[in-house]
Formats: sequence, structure tokens, C-alpha cells
Amino acid sequence: MKQSRGIKPIAYPAPVYIVGTYDAEGNPNMMAAAWGGICCSRPPSLCVSLRSATQSHGNIVARKSFTISIPSETYVAEADYAGLISGREVDKFAEADLTPVRAEYVDAPYVGEYPVVIECALTHTVELGLHTLFVGEVRDVKADEDVFDAQGKLDVTKIKPLIWAPDDRGYYGIGEKLGDAFAIGRALMNDQTEG
Amino acid sequence: MKQSRGIKPIAYPAPVYIVGTYDAEGNPNMMAAAWGGICCSRPPSLCVSLRSATQSHGNIVARKSFTISIPSETYVAEADYAGLISGREVDKFAEADLTPVRAEYVDAPYVGEYPVVIECALTHTVELGLHTLFVGEVRDVKADEDVFDAQGKLDVTKIKPLIWAPDDRGYYGIGEKLGDAFAIGRALMNDQTEG
Repeated sequence: MKQSRGIKPIAYPAPVYIVGTYDAEGNPNMMAAAWGGICCSRPPSLCVSLRSATQSHGNIVARKSFTISIPSETYVAEADYAGLISGREVDKFAEADLTPVRAEYVDAPYVGEYPVVIECALTHTVELGLHTLFVGEVRDVKADEDVFDAQGKLDVTKIKPLIWAPDDRGYYGIGEKLGDAFAIGRALMNDQTEG
Repeated sequence: MKQSRGIKPIAYPAPVYIVGTYDAEGNPNMMAAAWGGICCSRPPSLCVSLRSATQSHGNIVARKSFTISIPSETYVAEADYAGLISGREVDKFAEADLTPVRAEYVDAPYVGEYPVVIECALTHTVELGLHTLFVGEVRDVKADEDVFDAQGKLDVTKIKPLIWAPDDRGYYGIGEKLGDAFAIGRALMNDQTEG
């Protein structure tokens, strides 16, 4: 028997995206966002939701650009820090000893030390309430050499992304591999003939 | 030095949402979707993106309702199966030996065996290209008794959600806890006085 947990923003897993933007003077900012995800395959697009009170929100509206940097486990403190304070108060890159790198295809900075970076050009802005949902078309995915596998694909076990758990508000690592998609479920296709 | 992985829908982690809907005759359907996430805190809202070719897409448009069921690790084969075949061809609940349960607040079924369920009422529909982004306002979060902690919150280590890794297309479990949010990053606030 299921119990109600009420009306809350809960689903698993949630990501830890570090959103990179420039302000009007070209100063780099970053903030942590767990409300977001991939939202389209063609054109490849990501969405991220921010409160209008944040500096990053205004930066995205003005520059039509943002990056998503994916921190690895070793940067859990830096990722949390990026969500603790406003870029209006301090230079968060400097305080966290991280390097803002100018993106190649969009007008935004990314975190040089993080293993995977997605450059996004703003395409849709949807006001939902406390949060504004921004959709960005992917202009490039960049990753450190050592997180590619032998086939040239990105290996999540090398990236070691952070995972955010709503409700208990904890950061987690990624666990063991459980199976391959479009494969492990075939055993249940009892009545299907493949060929 | 970062290398380009090209223009692809890649970000980490991605979820494994099982989307529950009814068709025009009231038959329950479910499908797996990794393009989605939480997108607003007030009103609490989730988004999920589906191709218009899917039966679930038409069901959401018609019924303005969907559920997101979160499978635990033990259901990795059933979750994969839900993404392998169309509900137009078979009764996926029956084939996977899962129970469609009518949601309490929206016109959609959820997967009775999965530990966490979010009931959503459609509020926004955004055409992005191959995928349509559906935003649903959370009408209730339900969970099995044994995934609550002593404080009445949901414990992700008991839920054991599936994690989807784009590019390598694998399913993973959740790993160890790395820290508490809004806490572990305070060590970097060197120049801040709190209190």
C-alpha cells in the first residue's frame, strides 16, 4: 500500500548541472541546478529551470546562451558551493578555485575542470511559476580525453557524475552497471519473433 | 584539453521514467522515457519529452494526464521492455507482469510494483522538434512504506532508482552518498561570515 508524500517536486534521479553564463560586463558566473534534463533528440536539446531571482536567469535572457558543466564526484564541495551563494556577491569561479573557459560556439563560460560540458543556445523560454524553464539547443558536447571509451563514446563510469536526491537533499555517486538498454528487456518479449 | 563529442543529446545523469497513460478506450499503457526531469518547485512540476509517433504522446494530449513511475533496480528488465515495443501492439503491463493502478488525482495509471509514483496533470505542451515536451503539475507523490525514512522523507538508498547513461546506453544503480546539499560546500565560503 502506497503512502502519500504530498505535492512536491520529487523524482529520481536528478542531475547536478553547473550552469555557466556571462553577465552584462562579461563576468563569468556559475550556479548549481538540479531541475533539468535532456528534452529533445533532434535538434539535441537540454532544459534547465532557474528562479528569476538568480543572476544566471538574467544572464541567459540577455545572452541567449548557457553551458552545462557536469562535475565529477571529486568536485562535490565545489558543486554545492555554486548553489550556496549568488554570483552578485562573489566571483564564484575564483572562490572555488575553478577556471572559466569561454565556450566555442555560444556566448557563455564553462568549468574547465569538469569532465563533460554541453554548450547550449537558448531556443525556448517557458514561465512555469517560481521557475523559468529554458530550453537550449546543443551546439557541442566536449569531454576530457580520459572519459572517452575505446569506441569514442563517453563512459559514465569514468565521468563519475554527481546525482542529486530530492527530499533527502543528498549527493550520491553512480553505482554499478545493471544492464544494456534495448537489450536486457528482450527476455520479456515472450511472444515476439525477432529477425 | 577537451575533445568534441559532437552535437548530441548527452548529459548526466538521465532518469528512467515509466510514463503511464490511458488510451481512448481506457486501456493502460506505459513507456520508458529518459528525456525529462523536475522543472518547477512552485507549482511542483515535472517534464517529460516524447516523440509524437508514440501512443503515449497521443494519450497525454487526449487525457491531459500522466504518471511517472520510478522503477527500482530489480525492475531493470521490465523498464527496458517498456521502451522496446509499442503499446499499440501488446498490453505491456500484462506482458511484463506488472499491475496498472488507477491514479488518485489524475486520469492515468501507474505501475503498482514500482516504489515511487508521481501523478501529473498536463499544464504545458512545447513542440521542440522530434520530441514534444510535456510539463505536468504534480498532484501527488506516492511511495511504498518501506522507502520512507524515520523523518517521513523518501530515502533514495531504499528506492534504488535506475540511472540512464546516454552515449553508452547503459542502466546503472545509485552509488554511495557523497555529502549533504547546502552543507558540504560551506568549507569553500572562506570570506563569508555566517550567523
